[in-house]
Amino acid sequence: MTYKLHPDRFFSAEPGIRKVAHELYMGIKDLPIISPHGHTDPSWYAENTPFRDPTELIIIPDHYIFRLLYSQGIPLESLGVLSLDGTEVEQDHRKIWSIFAGNFHLFSGTPSGAWLEYVFHEVFGLEERLDTQNANSIYNTINAALKTEQFLPRSIIKKFNIEVLSTTDEPADLLESHQKIIDSDCRARIIPSFRPDELTDLQNSQWHSKIEELGQVVGYELDSYTKFIQALEERRAFFKEKGATATDHGVRTPFTAELSRPECEGIFQRALQGRRNPDDAIQFTAHMLMEMARMSTEDGLVMQIHPGSFRNHNQLIFNRFGPDKGADIPVRTEYTHNLHALLNKYGNDPRFSLIVFTLDESTYARELAPLAGHYPAMKLGPSWWFHDSPEGMLRFRQMTSETASLYNTVGFNDDTRALLSIPARHDLSRRVDSNYLASLVATHRIEMDTAIRMSRALAYDLAKAAYKL
Amino acid sequence: MTYKLHPDRFFSAEPGIRKVAHELYMGIKDLPIISPHGHTDPSWYAENTPFRDPTELIIIPDHYIFRLLYSQGIPLESLGVLSLDGTEVEQDHRKIWSIFAGNFHLFSGTPSGAWLEYVFHEVFGLEERLDTQNANSIYNTINAALKTEQFLPRSIIKKFNIEVLSTTDEPADLLESHQKIIDSDCRARIIPSFRPDELTDLQNSQWHSKIEELGQVVGYELDSYTKFIQALEERRAFFKEKGATATDHGVRTPFTAELSRPECEGIFQRALQGRRNPDDAIQFTAHMLMEMARMSTEDGLVMQIHPGSFRNHNQLIFNRFGPDKGADIPVRTEYTHNLHALLNKYGNDPRFSLIVFTLDESTYARELAPLAGHYPAMKLGPSWWFHDSPEGMLRFRQMTSETASLYNTVGFNDDTRALLSIPARHDLSRRVDSNYLASLVATHRIEMDTAIRMSRALAYDLAKAAYKL
Amino acid sequence: MTYKLHPDRFFSAEPGIRKVAHELYMGIKDLPIISPHGHTDPSWYAENTPFRDPTELIIIPDHYIFRLLYSQGIPLESLGVLSLDGTEVEQDHRKIWSIFAGNFHLFSGTPSGAWLEYVFHEVFGLEERLDTQNANSIYNTINAALKTEQFLPRSIIKKFNIEVLSTTDEPADLLESHQKIIDSDCRARIIPSFRPDELTDLQNSQWHSKIEELGQVVGYELDSYTKFIQALEERRAFFKEKGATATDHGVRTPFTAELSRPECEGIFQRALQGRRNPDDAIQFTAHMLMEMARMSTEDGLVMQIHPGSFRNHNQLIFNRFGPDKGADIPVRTEYTHNLHALLNKYGNDPRFSLIVFTLDESTYARELAPLAGHYPAMKLGPSWWFHDSPEGMLRFRQMTSETASLYNTVGFNDDTRALLSIPARHDLSRRVDSNYLASLVATHRIEMDTAIRMSRALAYDLAKAAYKL
Repeated sequence: MTYKLHPDRFFSAEPGIRKVAHELYMGIKDLPIISPHGHTDPSWYAENTPFRDPTELIIIPDHYIFRLLYSQGIPLESLGVLSLDGTEVEQDHRKIWSIFAGNFHLFSGTPSGAWLEYVFHEVFGLEERLDTQNANSIYNTINAALKTEQFLPRSIIKKFNIEVLSTTDEPADLLESHQKIIDSDCRARIIPSFRPDELTDLQNSQWHSKIEELGQVVGYELDSYTKFIQALEERRAFFKEKGATATDHGVRTPFTAELSRPECEGIFQRALQGRRNPDDAIQFTAHMLMEMARMSTEDGLVMQIHPGSFRNHNQLIFNRFGPDKGADIPVRTEYTHNLHALLNKYGNDPRFSLIVFTLDESTYARELAPLAGHYPAMKLGPSWWFHDSPEGMLRFRQMTSETASLYNTVGFNDDTRALLSIPARHDLSRRVDSNYLASLVATHRIEMDTAIRMSRALAYDLAKAAYKL
Repeated sequence: MTYKLHPDRFFSAEPGIRKVAHELYMGIKDLPIISPHGHTDPSWYAENTPFRDPTELIIIPDHYIFRLLYSQGIPLESLGVLSLDGTEVEQDHRKIWSIFAGNFHLFSGTPSGAWLEYVFHEVFGLEERLDTQNANSIYNTINAALKTEQFLPRSIIKKFNIEVLSTTDEPADLLESHQKIIDSDCRARIIPSFRPDELTDLQNSQWHSKIEELGQVVGYELDSYTKFIQALEERRAFFKEKGATATDHGVRTPFTAELSRPECEGIFQRALQGRRNPDDAIQFTAHMLMEMARMSTEDGLVMQIHPGSFRNHNQLIFNRFGPDKGADIPVRTEYTHNLHALLNKYGNDPRFSLIVFTLDESTYARELAPLAGHYPAMKLGPSWWFHDSPEGMLRFRQMTSETASLYNTVGFNDDTRALLSIPARHDLSRRVDSNYLASLVATHRIEMDTAIRMSRALAYDLAKAAYKL
Repeated sequence: MTYKLHPDRFFSAEPGIRKVAHELYMGIKDLPIISPHGHTDPSWYAENTPFRDPTELIIIPDHYIFRLLYSQGIPLESLGVLSLDGTEVEQDHRKIWSIFAGNFHLFSGTPSGAWLEYVFHEVFGLEERLDTQNANSIYNTINAALKTEQFLPRSIIKKFNIEVLSTTDEPADLLESHQKIIDSDCRARIIPSFRPDELTDLQNSQWHSKIEELGQVVGYELDSYTKFIQALEERRAFFKEKGATATDHGVRTPFTAELSRPECEGIFQRALQGRRNPDDAIQFTAHMLMEMARMSTEDGLVMQIHPGSFRNHNQLIFNRFGPDKGADIPVRTEYTHNLHALLNKYGNDPRFSLIVFTLDESTYARELAPLAGHYPAMKLGPSWWFHDSPEGMLRFRQMTSETASLYNTVGFNDDTRALLSIPARHDLSRRVDSNYLASLVATHRIEMDTAIRMSRALAYDLAKAAYKL
């Protein structure tokens, strides 16, 4: 018996809701993908060379996957995750694949499981569920597909009907890959976004080298706060030239506060001299968010804030394997007080557009929806990271829509470094949103024509508008 | 085709639950309305003059409505919201109505949308959905209705089957409107409630003038803490004479702590001399909650606490338009430690009755339900403000009922300044509660006879008992 | 008409989900009970004498029950709750039973109500709902049953099909009851668990006497931190001998931090000399959690942390009746920072196993699931105490499964001192989990074979494995 994904998966079991959900979904499922925030590697599309093998594409780079295997006691070494300290890691990709297959049940009922199933059965057309028996033959099938023309990175983009795809890039990045893509036959808009976290966080151990690197790119030494700001402004302009429409700020907290120019200069000089301290760092990041908002009112780049992650919580893993290894853990996050300075200065400014995310769902109904339901500049980013899941997306809708209205949200972000999962994630979001709207229709809270309009907004229109695409 | 509200709106799409919900709802939908906490203007009922027009009645005073329009970039000026600083605002009420009509889709799926639909289709009997085409003719229809006898304020009260309606009033209020209503043909009980926030918050910029005003009303200068307390006690007695059964306290946090008499006197004298400081203010408010509880044990007024709003978050809007303009944003709120002093002193006292509200849903199951499920004096107010919505009410029930039981809650509060929305809000609450109880019946957690008893309690009995009406 | 519990109670009203839930439940309902954490009294099983009467067994020891009666103004004195201060309490157990019967409606829709109904109708086979009319006859029926052989404590254990039952015991406990049980005909494994809270909390007023008592048990004076640690290690070994597989730590916060040996000695000596201070106490408890983890890596006992309860919130009740009187109120709890030290030192250690609980549901998706979904040593305990309820269990699954996967949870804990409620609680958990899994099947998120495997894991396998039983 062939194994197929159910056409009405993720829709309510209640037949009335399911029928409406199905109808709404059919109207949006083929809309082009707008991916305004993500972490795929632009060199893939610039170079357009084949991916090496299933393990390298699907397992090794995806912290969603290996963190869960690790949590069950499977060493990252055995999964081929690259070590920084010279620790030997498994090189046999078939062996890694086989460990993955043997533990595939761990992903049942998780979003990673749903994305993987989409990749296997919709993208690669597999007709069996992965297990220890078929691990090798499935590896072969995928591996063979990856060698074909239609699985080259740019072919994938086209096959997935991606209209816009944003990457996330550091200010000093020369965006050469982006230029190559522009010059290529790629018809999707693949654009950078400006993420200066390593420069705005004085606690970052790389701060000095990042400052130096940026100075080299702009062609002058960043020996004063004024020059630092000038460099950032120049790079934003450069990013904008290459197609960027947004900036992104991954901060520990969304605390914002304006410092005087002498205070900034003082902190910056202390930092240059290696005399950074935690309080300086907090004040500086808070102030830099104000500066970024100010620049956004001038250059029109949409500002995104992604706060609230305690990065690299597991020191042993960080030392051995580096960042982004599934050990970033959310912390409680406060917005009402923290965003007060920024929203008071720029929140009423029609030139300013701010998209706020959270890893703390307790803020959805309490802080974020009321803020977005008042300030013209502020919109809510979709349910993020651990909450980018069927239940998480539903909670986001249920806790924000009544106060903020759907029209103060910005559609979906896939936010992924896993290229193949892009359509899986958008499809899941479209299904969950269709089902959410269907539940409103079936309980007579909205009419069908309204639901149709909303479903299109959530799948396509809002993202395009909010990110100025 | 005429547009009508569905008779089973807000009930589950699942036919089994819906059937039970419908049956429960039919048993309570015509019960009189008990409205023990709200913000309508008593002079309306005292004067009983017609409302000017649809815009003045429905849009201009309702921050639920204009905040959402504002969030989408529509200036408050263009919505006729009265400015304090002389800024010109739109005077053409038909033009304002037309902006509202053109943006009516923003309210789809929000509680404001549900209330407006009730007002349009149930109160005014409209047979079309509001849109840009019919905006003017709908304006005319409503406008004409407002000129008729049956839309005079007291007629509305009667038409809505309101048995008791409480307003919210300052201690210095002479309650002349309430006396006029008592002397009128109005058969509803329209009663004041005692809200001394401006006097108990030393940070309030009006504090001095409020103290002076209160001194004039009681006939002696409030030059000591002792006299201040005496004045409050006298005014509570006066409010009670005019029908009040409750006090209300809108505080930033529910922190309670008892100060010694000399400490109180010291803080009070410093405040009189203009030497208020933030710490004094925090201690004073905390202490005044203790005093209010003490007075409640003596005069029997039910004490309500409404904490956790960061008022007037948007300084620009506050400066131009004043308070209550949709820019009050909730903050995280703590109850277990904060109410410790008050509950330890008065929580076991059979003469004391405390109703606690929250804007922080994370406290429902964690702090509030356990507290109300233990202390005899404490009950939970219904889901409040941003959470007075279908999803919000459901979350309230799901997160409090199992620990506190329904019998430690107090039924519904409409808490509104929008007169026409009163039956809309009670109807919505009755529907959502009927559906909640139906889901318990349909999953065999309670029997139908129990559900019938509970539905009546939630719709009528609990409010009447808890507020001593 | 006889009153029976519905065979499909707690399953969804939606027929598709209900059918699957029923099928899953049928496959697990008769599995033996694994109860790895609870508070029943081991002397019951050791002595095996009949329980006195229904009131003594069901009402007087159960703070879940009398707290709710108390919240409605019924004095604990009238419920026979033993006072410490000599206050007279009701001695007539039929009278107490009659008060309970007259207020039985308060429990409708609460988990206590569900457990009581199971006890009445499934355990005692009653065919009427308890009310004021039949209170006395039901009392008689239960009372008569309690006098029979089949309601002796060990018979109950057998009747309930309990395979393993853990009690919770202090380090100085000689575990004589446990030895008696081992030596008896009892075939269930009734094992102790090691709970040293009174020794690790320097704020505990009994600390000195507990230290002395432990010294007597180990046979040397605990006059140094080193000896204190040695004593704990010895007692852990003794508990292990008697069958213990786990320790338990009820702490106000899960804060962990390692102190140097001299710091520990300093704090310990100050404490011995009666110079304890709150900061010492916080640091000491934080450090002792580290020590306990260290010992666990050595002796293999599974470590449980139950944080976040403000014990004995009501001073009047505590003074009169002592602890565990329904006045323990949860507080906001933080895990990401607090567990950082412990997880960094031991979280990657394959010898270590940590089970973390919470009373703060806002941490489920934000902190606990991400931590358990990464650290190999950490698993999530089931929804606890106020959240051990149909809605609470559902929220736990919905907020943890997608990130942590079911396989980083540990099945069910009944955590009860109410012996008769044990099968009621396990049955409820099995029903709610079956229904949760059925909803995944019916929405095509998992296949039926997966659901069957998961349902067995949740009902039996996970608890057995996680607690090393």
